[in-house]
Amino acid sequence: MHRIITINREFGSGGREIGKRLAEALSMSYYDHEICTKIAKESNLDENYVSNLVEKGISNTMPLTFSNSISLIPAFVETAPLLLAKQHKLIKELAGKSDCLFVGRGADAVLAELNPLRIFVYAEEASKLKRCHERAPEGENLSDKELIRKMKQIDRARATNHDLVADYDWNDKFAYDLLINTTNVEIKSIIPSLTAYADAWFKQS
Amino acid sequence: MHRIITINREFGSGGREIGKRLAEALSMSYYDHEICTKIAKESNLDENYVSNLVEKGISNTMPLTFSNSISLIPAFVETAPLLLAKQHKLIKELAGKSDCLFVGRGADAVLAELNPLRIFVYAEEASKLKRCHERAPEGENLSDKELIRKMKQIDRARATNHDLVADYDWNDKFAYDLLINTTNVEIKSIIPSLTAYADAWFKQS
Repeated sequence: MHRIITINREFGSGGREIGKRLAEALSMSYYDHEICTKIAKESNLDENYVSNLVEKGISNTMPLTFSNSISLIPAFVETAPLLLAKQHKLIKELAGKSDCLFVGRGADAVLAELNPLRIFVYAEEASKLKRCHERAPEGENLSDKELIRKMKQIDRARATNHDLVADYDWNDKFAYDLLINTTNVEIKSIIPSLTAYADAWFKQS
Repeated sequence: MHRIITINREFGSGGREIGKRLAEALSMSYYDHEICTKIAKESNLDENYVSNLVEKGISNTMPLTFSNSISLIPAFVETAPLLLAKQHKLIKELAGKSDCLFVGRGADAVLAELNPLRIFVYAEEASKLKRCHERAPEGENLSDKELIRKMKQIDRARATNHDLVADYDWNDKFAYDLLINTTNVEIKSIIPSLTAYADAWFKQS
Protein backbone atom coordinates (compact mmCIF):
# COMPACT_ATOMS: atom_id res chain seq x y z
CA MET A 1 0.00 0.00 0.00
CA HIS A 2 1.26 3.48 -0.80
CA ARG A 3 2.17 6.04 1.83
CA ILE A 4 -0.36 8.84 1.93
CA ILE A 5 -0.20 12.17 3.74
CA THR A 6 -3.15 14.56 3.89
CA ILE A 7 -2.84 18.16 5.02
CA ASN A 8 -5.71 20.40 6.05
CA ARG A 9 -4.80 23.98 6.84
CA GLU A 10 -6.03 27.38 7.81
CA PHE A 11 -5.64 30.00 5.09
CA GLY A 12 -2.32 31.79 5.57
CA SER A 13 -0.82 29.19 7.90
CA GLY A 14 1.74 27.91 5.39
CA GLY A 15 0.09 24.50 5.10
CA ARG A 16 0.56 24.38 1.35
CA GLU A 17 4.25 25.21 1.67
CA ILE A 18 4.65 22.45 4.26
CA GLY A 19 2.86 20.10 1.86
CA LYS A 20 5.04 20.95 -1.15
CA ARG A 21 8.31 20.73 0.77
CA LEU A 22 7.33 17.56 2.61
CA ALA A 23 6.22 15.84 -0.59
CA GLU A 24 9.53 16.75 -2.20
CA ALA A 25 11.56 15.57 0.81
CA LEU A 26 9.66 12.26 0.90
CA SER A 27 9.57 11.80 -2.90
CA MET A 28 5.79 11.77 -2.91
CA SER A 29 3.50 13.05 -5.66
CA TYR A 30 1.94 16.35 -4.60
CA TYR A 31 -1.72 17.15 -5.34
CA ASP A 32 -3.52 20.36 -4.67
CA HIS A 33 -4.97 22.56 -7.42
CA GLU A 34 -3.85 20.04 -10.05
CA ILE A 35 -6.94 18.00 -9.22
CA CYS A 36 -9.26 20.81 -10.35
CA THR A 37 -7.31 21.29 -13.57
CA LYS A 38 -7.67 17.61 -14.38
CA ILE A 39 -11.40 17.50 -13.57
CA ALA A 40 -12.06 20.63 -15.63
CA LYS A 41 -10.28 19.14 -18.63
CA GLU A 42 -12.06 15.79 -18.35
CA SER A 43 -15.46 17.41 -17.86
CA ASN A 44 -14.95 20.04 -20.51
CA LEU A 45 -15.74 22.77 -17.99
CA ASP A 46 -14.12 26.07 -17.19
CA GLU A 47 -11.29 25.57 -14.67
CA ASN A 48 -12.31 28.55 -12.54
CA TYR A 49 -15.84 27.24 -12.33
CA VAL A 50 -14.66 23.82 -11.16
CA SER A 51 -12.18 25.37 -8.81
CA ASN A 52 -14.76 27.67 -7.24
CA LEU A 53 -17.12 24.81 -6.80
CA VAL A 54 -14.90 22.14 -5.33
CA GLU A 55 -12.58 24.47 -3.42
CA LYS A 56 -14.85 27.14 -2.10
CA GLY A 57 -17.87 24.99 -1.43
CA ILE A 58 -21.32 24.87 -2.91
CA SER A 59 -22.96 27.21 -0.44
CA ASN A 60 -20.20 29.76 -0.75
CA THR A 61 -19.90 29.69 -4.51
CA MET A 62 -23.51 29.82 -5.54
CA PRO A 63 -24.32 33.40 -4.60
CA LEU A 64 -21.17 34.63 -6.34
CA THR A 65 -21.57 32.66 -9.53
CA PHE A 66 -25.24 33.11 -10.00
CA SER A 67 -25.92 36.50 -8.57
CA ASN A 68 -26.94 37.75 -12.01
CA SER A 69 -28.43 34.67 -13.52
CA ILE A 70 -30.78 32.86 -11.22
CA SER A 71 -31.98 30.66 -14.07
CA LEU A 72 -28.65 28.79 -13.95
CA ILE A 73 -29.16 27.49 -10.43
CA PRO A 74 -30.73 24.16 -11.43
CA ALA A 75 -27.79 23.34 -13.72
CA PHE A 76 -25.39 24.28 -10.93
CA VAL A 77 -27.14 22.17 -8.35
CA GLU A 78 -26.94 19.20 -10.70
CA THR A 79 -23.28 19.75 -11.56
CA ALA A 80 -21.95 20.27 -8.05
CA PRO A 81 -22.42 16.73 -6.68
CA LEU A 82 -21.12 15.26 -9.93
CA LEU A 83 -17.94 17.29 -9.72
CA LEU A 84 -17.42 16.37 -6.08
CA ALA A 85 -17.93 12.71 -6.93
CA LYS A 86 -15.41 13.07 -9.75
CA GLN A 87 -12.96 14.66 -7.34
CA HIS A 88 -13.29 11.77 -4.88
CA LYS A 89 -12.84 9.20 -7.63
CA LEU A 90 -9.75 10.99 -8.88
CA ILE A 91 -8.26 11.26 -5.37
CA LYS A 92 -8.72 7.51 -4.89
CA GLU A 93 -7.19 6.76 -8.29
CA LEU A 94 -4.14 8.91 -7.57
CA ALA A 95 -3.68 7.37 -4.11
CA GLY A 96 -3.63 3.95 -5.75
CA LYS A 97 -0.84 4.89 -8.14
CA SER A 98 2.00 6.13 -5.94
CA ASP A 99 3.00 7.58 -2.56
CA CYS A 100 1.29 10.94 -2.43
CA LEU A 101 0.46 14.01 -0.42
CA PHE A 102 -2.86 15.82 -0.78
CA VAL A 103 -3.57 19.34 0.43
CA GLY A 104 -7.24 19.88 1.30
CA ARG A 105 -10.04 18.47 -0.88
CA GLY A 106 -11.35 16.23 1.91
CA ALA A 107 -8.67 13.69 1.01
CA ASP A 108 -8.29 12.76 4.69
CA ALA A 109 -11.90 11.55 4.72
CA VAL A 110 -12.00 10.15 1.18
CA LEU A 111 -8.87 8.07 1.84
CA ALA A 112 -9.60 7.19 5.49
CA GLU A 113 -9.43 3.45 4.76
CA LEU A 114 -5.86 3.81 3.52
CA ASN A 115 -4.80 5.15 6.94
CA PRO A 116 -3.13 8.37 5.81
CA LEU A 117 -0.91 10.45 8.08
CA ARG A 118 -3.29 13.34 8.73
CA ILE A 119 -1.76 16.75 9.46
CA PHE A 120 -3.49 20.02 10.37
CA VAL A 121 -1.63 23.32 10.05
CA TYR A 122 -2.80 26.50 11.80
CA ALA A 123 -1.47 29.74 13.23
CA GLU A 124 -2.43 32.83 15.14
CA GLU A 125 -4.10 35.59 13.17
CA ALA A 126 -1.18 38.04 13.29
CA SER A 127 1.18 35.38 11.96
CA LYS A 128 -1.22 34.47 9.14
CA LEU A 129 -1.65 38.13 8.20
CA LYS A 130 2.13 38.56 7.98
CA ARG A 131 2.46 35.49 5.77
CA CYS A 132 -0.42 36.63 3.53
CA HIS A 133 1.08 40.10 3.06
CA GLU A 134 4.49 38.64 2.22
CA ARG A 135 3.04 36.24 -0.33
CA ALA A 136 0.27 38.39 -1.85
CA PRO A 137 -0.02 38.09 -5.65
CA GLU A 138 1.39 41.10 -7.50
CA GLY A 139 -1.12 43.92 -7.56
CA GLU A 140 -3.16 42.60 -4.61
CA ASN A 141 -2.97 45.04 -1.77
CA LEU A 142 -5.62 44.08 0.76
CA SER A 143 -5.88 45.80 4.14
CA ASP A 144 -5.58 43.74 7.32
CA LYS A 145 -9.33 43.99 7.75
CA GLU A 146 -9.99 42.73 4.21
CA LEU A 147 -7.46 39.94 4.62
CA ILE A 148 -8.99 38.79 7.90
CA ARG A 149 -12.40 38.69 6.22
CA LYS A 150 -10.93 36.67 3.31
CA MET A 151 -9.18 34.26 5.71
CA LYS A 152 -12.36 33.64 7.65
CA GLN A 153 -14.43 33.16 4.48
CA ILE A 154 -11.99 30.66 3.03
CA ASP A 155 -11.62 28.70 6.26
CA ARG A 156 -15.40 28.58 6.66
CA ALA A 157 -15.70 27.26 3.11
CA ARG A 158 -13.02 24.65 3.75
CA ALA A 159 -14.83 23.48 6.87
CA THR A 160 -18.19 23.38 5.04
CA ASN A 161 -16.73 21.50 2.10
CA HIS A 162 -15.05 19.06 4.45
CA ASP A 163 -18.37 18.38 6.15
CA LEU A 164 -19.73 17.10 2.84
CA VAL A 165 -17.37 14.12 2.94
CA ALA A 166 -16.39 13.65 6.59
CA ASP A 167 -18.39 12.64 9.63
CA TYR A 168 -16.03 14.58 11.90
CA ASP A 169 -15.20 18.22 12.29
CA TRP A 170 -12.52 19.89 10.11
CA ASN A 171 -11.29 21.61 13.25
CA ASP A 172 -11.25 18.63 15.64
CA LYS A 173 -7.83 17.50 16.85
CA PHE A 174 -9.01 13.88 16.93
CA ALA A 175 -9.35 14.04 13.15
CA TYR A 176 -5.56 14.45 12.91
CA ASP A 177 -2.34 12.71 13.85
CA LEU A 178 -0.28 15.86 14.14
CA LEU A 179 -1.27 19.53 14.50
CA ILE A 180 1.34 22.17 13.80
CA ASN A 181 1.07 25.77 14.95
CA THR A 182 3.22 27.75 12.49
CA THR A 183 3.05 31.02 14.44
CA ASN A 184 6.55 32.55 14.08
CA VAL A 185 7.84 29.35 12.53
CA GLU A 186 9.96 29.32 9.39
CA ILE A 187 8.46 26.44 7.42
CA LYS A 188 11.69 25.37 5.75
CA SER A 189 13.39 24.78 9.08
CA ILE A 190 10.88 22.23 10.36
CA ILE A 191 10.74 20.05 7.22
CA PRO A 192 13.56 17.64 8.19
CA SER A 193 11.85 16.92 11.53
CA LEU A 194 8.46 16.41 9.86
CA THR A 195 10.03 14.10 7.30
CA ALA A 196 11.51 12.07 10.17
CA TYR A 197 8.15 12.05 11.95
CA ALA A 198 6.39 10.77 8.84
CA ASP A 199 9.04 8.08 8.29
CA ALA A 200 8.68 6.84 11.87
CA TRP A 201 4.88 6.99 11.67
CA PHE A 202 4.65 4.98 8.43
CA LYS A 203 6.93 2.27 9.79
CA GLN A 204 4.30 1.45 12.42
CA SER A 205 1.06 1.95 10.57
CA MET B 1 17.60 32.41 28.29
CA HIS B 2 17.15 28.70 28.84
CA ARG B 3 15.22 26.45 26.50
CA ILE B 4 11.96 25.34 28.07
CA ILE B 5 9.50 22.66 26.90
CA THR B 6 6.13 22.15 28.55
CA ILE B 7 3.98 19.09 27.96
CA ASN B 8 0.32 18.77 28.79
CA ARG B 9 -1.22 15.39 28.18
CA GLU B 10 -4.29 13.24 28.44
CA PHE B 11 -3.99 10.42 30.96
CA GLY B 12 -2.77 7.29 29.18
CA SER B 13 -1.54 9.09 26.08
CA GLY B 14 2.15 8.54 26.79
CA GLY B 15 2.85 12.24 27.34
CA ARG B 16 5.07 11.57 30.34
CA GLU B 17 7.13 9.04 28.37
CA ILE B 18 7.53 11.56 25.55
CA GLY B 19 8.63 14.12 28.14
CA LYS B 20 11.21 11.87 29.78
CA ARG B 21 12.71 10.69 26.52
CA LEU B 22 12.71 14.14 24.95
CA ALA B 23 14.37 15.71 28.00
CA GLU B 24 17.03 13.02 27.90
CA ALA B 25 17.62 13.46 24.16
CA LEU B 26 17.89 17.23 24.52
CA SER B 27 19.91 17.13 27.78
CA MET B 28 17.24 19.06 29.62
CA SER B 29 16.31 18.73 33.29
CA TYR B 30 13.01 16.84 33.64
CA TYR B 31 10.37 17.88 36.18
CA ASP B 32 7.13 16.16 36.92
CA HIS B 33 6.36 14.60 40.30
CA GLU B 34 9.74 15.81 41.66
CA ILE B 35 8.13 19.20 42.19
CA CYS B 36 5.62 17.80 44.69
CA THR B 37 8.35 15.94 46.57
CA LYS B 38 10.35 19.15 46.93
CA ILE B 39 7.34 21.23 48.05
CA ALA B 40 6.31 18.57 50.57
CA LYS B 41 9.79 18.51 52.07
CA GLU B 42 10.05 22.28 52.25
CA SER B 43 6.56 22.67 53.72
CA ASN B 44 6.91 19.76 56.10
CA LEU B 45 3.75 18.20 54.70
CA ASP B 46 2.87 14.69 53.68
CA GLU B 47 3.90 14.10 50.05
CA ASN B 48 0.65 12.37 49.14
CA TYR B 49 -1.32 15.28 50.53
CA VAL B 50 0.66 17.80 48.45
CA SER B 51 0.50 15.57 45.41
CA ASN B 52 -3.26 15.13 45.69
CA LEU B 53 -3.74 18.82 46.07
CA VAL B 54 -1.56 20.21 43.31
CA GLU B 55 -1.99 17.34 40.86
CA LYS B 56 -5.60 16.37 41.22
CA GLY B 57 -7.01 19.79 41.83
CA ILE B 58 -8.67 21.41 44.80
CA SER B 59 -12.21 20.58 43.82
CA ASN B 60 -11.38 16.97 43.07
CA THR B 61 -9.25 16.32 46.12
CA MET B 62 -11.39 17.84 48.82
CA PRO B 63 -14.21 15.30 48.91
CA LEU B 64 -11.71 12.43 48.97
CA THR B 65 -9.41 13.86 51.61
CA PHE B 66 -12.02 15.19 53.92
CA SER B 67 -14.86 12.80 53.54
CA ASN B 68 -14.52 11.73 57.16
CA SER B 69 -13.29 14.89 58.80
CA ILE B 70 -15.22 17.94 57.70
CA SER B 71 -13.57 19.97 60.47
CA LEU B 72 -10.35 19.99 58.45
CA ILE B 73 -11.82 21.88 55.49
CA PRO B 74 -10.80 25.37 56.69
CA ALA B 75 -7.15 24.29 57.04
CA PHE B 76 -7.30 22.74 53.60
CA VAL B 77 -8.80 25.79 51.96
CA GLU B 78 -6.01 27.89 53.47
CA THR B 79 -3.23 25.51 52.45
CA ALA B 80 -4.29 24.94 48.87
CA PRO B 81 -3.53 28.39 47.44
CA LEU B 82 -0.25 28.51 49.37
CA LEU B 83 0.90 25.23 47.90
CA LEU B 84 -0.06 26.29 44.40
CA ALA B 85 1.84 29.55 44.87
CA LYS B 86 4.85 27.56 46.10
CA GLN B 87 4.60 25.34 43.04
CA HIS B 88 4.61 28.34 40.68
CA LYS B 89 7.57 29.90 42.46
CA LEU B 90 9.49 26.64 42.27
CA ILE B 91 8.69 26.18 38.57
CA LYS B 92 10.02 29.67 37.84
CA GLU B 93 13.16 29.06 39.89
CA LEU B 94 13.88 25.80 38.09
CA ALA B 95 13.28 27.39 34.68
CA GLY B 96 15.85 30.04 35.56
CA LYS B 97 18.53 27.48 36.38
CA SER B 98 18.86 25.32 33.27
CA ASP B 99 17.18 24.08 30.10
CA CYS B 100 14.21 22.10 31.29
CA LEU B 101 11.10 20.18 30.43
CA PHE B 102 7.99 20.25 32.62
CA VAL B 103 5.12 17.79 32.42
CA GLY B 104 1.82 19.31 33.54
CA ARG B 105 1.61 21.58 36.60
CA GLY B 106 0.41 24.57 34.54
CA ALA B 107 4.04 25.25 33.62
CA ASP B 108 2.99 26.39 30.12
CA ALA B 109 1.01 29.23 31.70
CA VAL B 110 3.37 29.96 34.60
CA LEU B 111 6.32 30.26 32.18
CA ALA B 112 4.47 31.90 29.29
CA GLU B 113 6.82 34.89 29.28
CA LEU B 114 9.78 32.61 28.66
CA ASN B 115 8.20 31.45 25.40
CA PRO B 116 8.32 27.70 26.01
CA LEU B 117 7.74 25.13 23.27
CA ARG B 118 4.27 23.95 24.30
CA ILE B 119 3.29 20.40 23.41
CA PHE B 120 -0.02 18.60 23.94
CA VAL B 121 -0.21 14.81 23.77
CA TYR B 122 -3.50 12.97 23.30
CA ALA B 123 -4.89 9.72 21.89
CA GLU B 124 -8.05 7.85 21.15
CA GLU B 125 -9.67 6.04 24.06
CA ALA B 126 -8.87 2.51 22.88
CA SER B 127 -5.21 3.39 22.51
CA LYS B 128 -5.07 4.98 25.97
CA LEU B 129 -6.77 1.93 27.49
CA LYS B 130 -4.20 -0.36 25.91
CA ARG B 131 -1.33 1.78 27.21
CA CYS B 132 -2.87 1.91 30.72
CA HIS B 133 -3.32 -1.86 30.88
CA GLU B 134 0.26 -2.45 29.72
CA ARG B 135 1.68 -0.08 32.31
CA ALA B 136 -0.64 -0.71 35.25
CA PRO B 137 1.16 -0.87 38.62
CA GLU B 138 1.54 -4.42 39.95
CA GLY B 139 -1.63 -5.54 41.63
CA GLU B 140 -3.86 -2.99 39.90
CA ASN B 141 -6.35 -4.73 37.72
CA LEU B 142 -8.99 -2.22 36.69
CA SER B 143 -11.67 -3.08 34.16
CA ASP B 144 -11.99 -1.01 30.98
CA LYS B 145 -14.98 0.74 32.48
CA GLU B 146 -13.09 1.63 35.66
CA LEU B 147 -10.08 2.78 33.68
CA ILE B 148 -12.21 5.00 31.44
CA ARG B 149 -13.75 6.57 34.54
CA LYS B 150 -10.28 7.15 36.03
CA MET B 151 -8.97 8.67 32.77
CA LYS B 152 -11.89 11.06 32.58
CA GLN B 153 -11.56 12.06 36.25
CA ILE B 154 -7.85 12.75 35.95
CA ASP B 155 -8.18 14.71 32.70
CA ARG B 156 -11.00 16.76 34.19
CA ALA B 157 -8.83 17.52 37.22
CA ARG B 158 -5.92 18.49 34.97
CA ALA B 159 -8.15 20.86 33.01
CA THR B 160 -9.58 22.36 36.21
CA ASN B 161 -6.14 22.81 37.75
CA HIS B 162 -4.88 24.38 34.56
CA ASP B 163 -7.74 26.87 34.62
CA LEU B 164 -6.44 28.16 37.96
CA VAL B 165 -3.33 29.54 36.28
CA ALA B 166 -4.16 30.00 32.60
CA ASP B 167 -6.56 32.29 30.82
CA TYR B 168 -6.98 29.77 28.00
CA ASP B 169 -8.40 26.31 27.77
CA TRP B 170 -6.28 23.23 28.56
CA ASN B 171 -7.79 21.61 25.51
CA ASP B 172 -7.44 24.47 23.00
CA LYS B 173 -5.02 23.87 20.13
CA PHE B 174 -4.07 27.56 20.10
CA ALA B 175 -2.54 27.06 23.55
CA TYR B 176 0.06 24.76 21.98
CA ASP B 177 2.77 24.75 19.33
CA LEU B 178 2.51 21.07 18.53
CA LEU B 179 -0.22 18.51 19.22
CA ILE B 180 0.65 14.85 18.93
CA ASN B 181 -1.91 12.08 18.60
CA THR B 182 -0.19 8.96 19.94
CA THR B 183 -2.90 6.53 18.82
CA ASN B 184 -1.00 3.41 17.64
CA VAL B 185 2.29 5.27 17.87
CA GLU B 186 5.35 3.76 19.53
CA ILE B 187 6.67 6.70 21.55
CA LYS B 188 10.33 5.75 21.24
CA SER B 189 10.22 5.87 17.46
CA ILE B 190 9.10 9.50 17.23
CA ILE B 191 11.63 10.97 19.69
CA PRO B 192 14.38 11.74 17.12
CA SER B 193 11.89 13.71 14.98
CA LEU B 194 10.54 15.60 18.00
CA THR B 195 14.09 16.41 19.10
CA ALA B 196 14.76 17.81 15.62
CA TYR B 197 11.50 19.78 15.72
CA ALA B 198 12.42 21.31 19.08
CA ASP B 199 15.92 22.17 17.88
CA ALA B 200 14.54 23.95 14.79
CA TRP B 201 11.88 25.69 16.83
CA PHE B 202 14.29 27.05 19.45
CA LYS B 203 16.63 28.41 16.77
CA GLN B 204 13.87 30.81 15.69
CA SER B 205 12.21 31.71 18.92
